Amino acid sequence: MPEPVSPIVWRDGELEIIDQTRLPEELVFIRPRTVEEVWKAIRELKVRGAPALGIAAAFGLYLAIKDFQAKGEEELCAQLKKAADYLASSRPTAVNLFWALKRVQEKVARAQGLGVEKIKELVLREALAIQQEDESMCLAIGRYGAELLKEAQAILTHCNAGTLATARYGTALAPVYYLATQGKVLRVFVDETRPLLQGARLTAWELKQAGIPVTLITDSMAAVVMQKGWVQAVVVGADRIAANGDVANKIGTYGLAILAREHGLPFYVAAPSSTFDLTLATGEEIPIEEREPAEITHLGLRPIAPQGIAVFNPAFDVTPHHYITAIITEKGILRPPYQESISQVLFKEAARQK
Amino acid sequence: MPEPVSPIVWRDGELEIIDQTRLPEELVFIRPRTVEEVWKAIRELKVRGAPALGIAAAFGLYLAIKDFQAKGEEELCAQLKKAADYLASSRPTAVNLFWALKRVQEKVARAQGLGVEKIKELVLREALAIQQEDESMCLAIGRYGAELLKEAQAILTHCNAGTLATARYGTALAPVYYLATQGKVLRVFVDETRPLLQGARLTAWELKQAGIPVTLITDSMAAVVMQKGWVQAVVVGADRIAANGDVANKIGTYGLAILAREHGLPFYVAAPSSTFDLTLATGEEIPIEEREPAEITHLGLRPIAPQGIAVFNPAFDVTPHHYITAIITEKGILRPPYQESISQVLFKEAARQK
Repeated sequence: MPEPVSPIVWRDGELEIIDQTRLPEELVFIRPRTVEEVWKAIRELKVRGAPALGIAAAFGLYLAIKDFQAKGEEELCAQLKKAADYLASSRPTAVNLFWALKRVQEKVARAQGLGVEKIKELVLREALAIQQEDESMCLAIGRYGAELLKEAQAILTHCNAGTLATARYGTALAPVYYLATQGKVLRVFVDETRPLLQGARLTAWELKQAGIPVTLITDSMAAVVMQKGWVQAVVVGADRIAANGDVANKIGTYGLAILAREHGLPFYVAAPSSTFDLTLATGEEIPIEEREPAEITHLGLRPIAPQGIAVFNPAFDVTPHHYITAIITEKGILRPPYQESISQVLFKEAARQK
Repeated sequence: MPEPVSPIVWRDGELEIIDQTRLPEELVFIRPRTVEEVWKAIRELKVRGAPALGIAAAFGLYLAIKDFQAKGEEELCAQLKKAADYLASSRPTAVNLFWALKRVQEKVARAQGLGVEKIKELVLREALAIQQEDESMCLAIGRYGAELLKEAQAILTHCNAGTLATARYGTALAPVYYLATQGKVLRVFVDETRPLLQGARLTAWELKQAGIPVTLITDSMAAVVMQKGWVQAVVVGADRIAANGDVANKIGTYGLAILAREHGLPFYVAAPSSTFDLTLATGEEIPIEEREPAEITHLGLRPIAPQGIAVFNPAFDVTPHHYITAIITEKGILRPPYQESISQVLFKEAARQK
């Protein structure tokens, strides 16, 4: 069975990125050679998904200084700072992107005196480390999630929380890929995920590419698939998780959670521990971005709704924690009550030190 | 406030039909002059909706014989039969279309001896009667439904069960139009209704045209609209209703019914009594048509999913009766247990005769 693709690869001194805007029609790799080209790839959504954005940005920093003829470390760091500010402007709400840029800069700040060439190396090594750590995190989520899904024949997922959004393996799809390596192949029912169709365009594509059987449905068909008993669990990713376990994720997630409960199906959220934002007591504090009406009223340039119609187009919704059977993280599986399991599983080292 | 449009009008000896394939981009009327042109309008979905199809077909029969130089009644009836068979081939699963064709032919059969010209008149009068009766039925549904919605500020609906699908006023939307004439204007949240987008293309258009405030959402946003408390009821149409009150309707209806219950909202089905099929004990006996994968995998000619992907594309789903708060018919409001209320409200005359 083929491995799931990596959307970003560092190969022979070159960055190689799958252009996700060309999927599913064709698999096209772009090879950004400059920080400007990485900025453009992020801006134009050729690369997407929180972890993947962080990885791309880190490699972007390396491209910005790789061939820079710096007189000294100070000049190199100034160049690095300039590149980081520039990359941060590509997707101004992408928290993971800022996190990666900051991490690389802090690493460099702690390495004063190494010399220009060593620092350049350090930046590349840090980008590779961010990528490698993300892949390990996804693998761990996959292993934990596999425990929950080992009896399932099929699952339902929403949007794209797969290999294309991460270094490799994804979050919601990681258990599926992991089980496949163990010889246990699940079928995945994929909601197309209106309005931007990440399910149809990306999730369906990456699963097919990895040899996983996949059935595409519209979002409105999820209830019938459950009614027919065709899936044994729903697994989704998360954008942000509050301290009480409320989950913000792609619009449509909340409805799926209700439908899953009504059909007696477990509803699992798969996300790395970095997704938890413990400064937010509940999901009500999570700000929900509203996007352009044109995403709903038009398909490409063609109008599919009357001109000037009022539209409600939230990018995310919040699923209250009591609908969530378990949250699968790289550190273990969280069960309700989440306030307790979050501190036990995610912050046990911190807890031990107290 | 403007009246809701009639999708089919007989005016000055001419048939005038709104070309629904051109909506919402432009309001274009076509004027079929022959039975062939009516057949084509039905076949190409320029006219759609069960009641509207029956009305169009009945006028199509008149166009088929209007200028026919018949030697006698027998020849005229043969011509009528030929036209009916031909029209029936336009949409081979449209029950209401067959019903209308049969009704006109039976009327003619009972009128033997009237003479060619009188029979031609009779056919036109019967087509007008079918149209008028449908409008009256929709109005009655509107009046009954208005009682249920008079305290609401906004409702959610799915697909198109509006004026465009009937002679006028629609079924699910009839209470909204009726309340508007009473000075009570509801806002309507409309699911776009993937895959064929009847909500975005047709319902949003007809409500806007009639001056009703409307907000378009994707199907996956219905749960959030309920969570926010923005709607006080869900109202949908029906394709077929079994003897126990189970309802087959456009795919997505079942999920909405579950979401409505979870949010404590009433879930109403509006449908004329002809929608009840008492030969079916439960909804499980209702056959569900599966449609072309291309409806989901393509937008127009453009692929939005990987080539050759497996697709599940049922046109309808079945909502079990216990999710349905009430069924609004032209004869009154049915409440659970439906087996009883169906015989009490719908067949009270038949019951009285026993």
